[in-house]
Amino acid sequence: MTASLLPDFAAKILAGDRRALARAITLVESARADHRAQAAALLEALAPAGRQALRIGLSGTPGVGKSTFIESFGTMLIGQGLKVAVLAVDPSSARSGGSILGDKTRMERLSREPNAFIRPSPSQAHLGGVARRTREAVSLCEAAGFDVVLIETVGVGQSETLVAEMTDLFILLMAPAGGDELQGVKRGIMEMADMILVNKADGDLKPAAMRTVGDYAGALRLLRKRGQDPEGFPKALPVSALEEQGLIKAWEEMRTLADWRRENGHFERRRAAQARHWFESEVREGLLARLHTDPEIRARMQALGAAVSAGEAAPATAAAEMLSTLGL
Amino acid sequence: MTASLLPDFAAKILAGDRRALARAITLVESARADHRAQAAALLEALAPAGRQALRIGLSGTPGVGKSTFIESFGTMLIGQGLKVAVLAVDPSSARSGGSILGDKTRMERLSREPNAFIRPSPSQAHLGGVARRTREAVSLCEAAGFDVVLIETVGVGQSETLVAEMTDLFILLMAPAGGDELQGVKRGIMEMADMILVNKADGDLKPAAMRTVGDYAGALRLLRKRGQDPEGFPKALPVSALEEQGLIKAWEEMRTLADWRRENGHFERRRAAQARHWFESEVREGLLARLHTDPEIRARMQALGAAVSAGEAAPATAAAEMLSTLGL
Repeated sequence: MTASLLPDFAAKILAGDRRALARAITLVESARADHRAQAAALLEALAPAGRQALRIGLSGTPGVGKSTFIESFGTMLIGQGLKVAVLAVDPSSARSGGSILGDKTRMERLSREPNAFIRPSPSQAHLGGVARRTREAVSLCEAAGFDVVLIETVGVGQSETLVAEMTDLFILLMAPAGGDELQGVKRGIMEMADMILVNKADGDLKPAAMRTVGDYAGALRLLRKRGQDPEGFPKALPVSALEEQGLIKAWEEMRTLADWRRENGHFERRRAAQARHWFESEVREGLLARLHTDPEIRARMQALGAAVSAGEAAPATAAAEMLSTLGL
Repeated sequence: MTASLLPDFAAKILAGDRRALARAITLVESARADHRAQAAALLEALAPAGRQALRIGLSGTPGVGKSTFIESFGTMLIGQGLKVAVLAVDPSSARSGGSILGDKTRMERLSREPNAFIRPSPSQAHLGGVARRTREAVSLCEAAGFDVVLIETVGVGQSETLVAEMTDLFILLMAPAGGDELQGVKRGIMEMADMILVNKADGDLKPAAMRTVGDYAGALRLLRKRGQDPEGFPKALPVSALEEQGLIKAWEEMRTLADWRRENGHFERRRAAQARHWFESEVREGLLARLHTDPEIRARMQALGAAVSAGEAAPATAAAEMLSTLGL
């Protein structure tokens, strides 16, 4: 893309062109320096539109029914006249070369909707890279006029924290379980949750699901974020993605929470803090990238590293020398 | 300390003066720029002596008997004519302001030995800071002529990885347990272990301890590090810190493993890789520190961060501006 094509590209995204959006996300996923520059220019061009979606993070361990939930929940939202984008954060996908979203066949019905946009996780090993790509992809989806951006993640390592740090609401999807299994949920992840949805509240599992909702509701009451949650939140609710039950209720509760936070200034404060965090981590990563991208600096790092390995230089001394080379 | 006092200070440490060693560790723990410079000069002055200790990492969850084990194991080593230093890595100690080692009363007998040196964990929240301080403290203990440096850590977060990355042998201390509890050990930590010691192999618990040894031995066989371990390693062994049983046997096995690795070049390769890793992380931290230490840069970060928070600048744009300020 040459600079002269940028206004046209930006206009297409603002018009909600899904193919242009997909191309733009491919651009922000690229690590090439010229692509990075184009991506920055594009995001800059789109910023004045000031469009915002409700950003919803969704986490849950494999087997809990995340794909089915997103399919049903997304279709319900579209039925309410909303445009829905689905992104995935899966730092582990680099290993298999695949993606938790696999291909779109996992959400066949949703992917056929004109008002839906589904994007699998890119295969990138580096969590920092995944974070940047996802934050930028969210901005692009917002610019393209999506009302809700769902960011899906698997319950692996730090990916929940990452998703919670870039969304307005963080939802945990759980399976029905015995009371003693409650302990299996990491406390840190429970603390991040703005809502817990217990899926599979249908058929034989319904009684267990209702019991599980009660158990989680009790646990969540203890974890209520003072000031950030209105009375009665965070809530645990039953849903059946399969039978499409409880989805509208869950959506209403999400909106109630988001509206309350907006009215009380928490929503904007959270976004402001997230934006600042994003800025700071971009600076840190840009600074560290210098060690790898500048050929002269990289060669000096290699040479000093080899001297340290060979026992010819002390690590701290070599580091001091490197830092002085960098003008520090 | 002025520069003219450095040779005298270094000489005292090389002579094994424990008070000088303690002062030197206090120096490397300091974040002050002048202290950092003095610490670097001191480490540089001590390096030519080229003294090396066997660095042993020790991890185990609270209640497993780590203090008693270090007390008994350390006293046994001293009985064999060795000098023993004990350091602690506890990134969580910042919270309580305390240290996992508490004070030396936890290891009363060992702390009275002239050939022992015990140093509690400093209260630093930042894992990177703890890592640097500990690596430098290990170098100081080696220069002071200690034969064995034991680095103790609690089973919390990333501290095991950190300790495994700065030691020659990484030992897991475990309690007797039923076979089904084996699953409770994180696989990643099992994989790092060069040896598992099952403590409390005494009294009523002895049968359970022996069964646990058998269970772990089976698990470890599956995790054998090809090429890095001789036939039969990693091993699981029973010990009783309380009754001082099995400690000499455990020490002999540690030496067998360390000697084998020395003869086969693994020992030096591991140290070389660790030194290089240390160098690289020092450079990264030094680079990032610039964002906080330089007043002009810090002020610019603050201003741009505030603009991002206020929605006046996009995070990526502000980051690009900051990086160009930094000459990147």
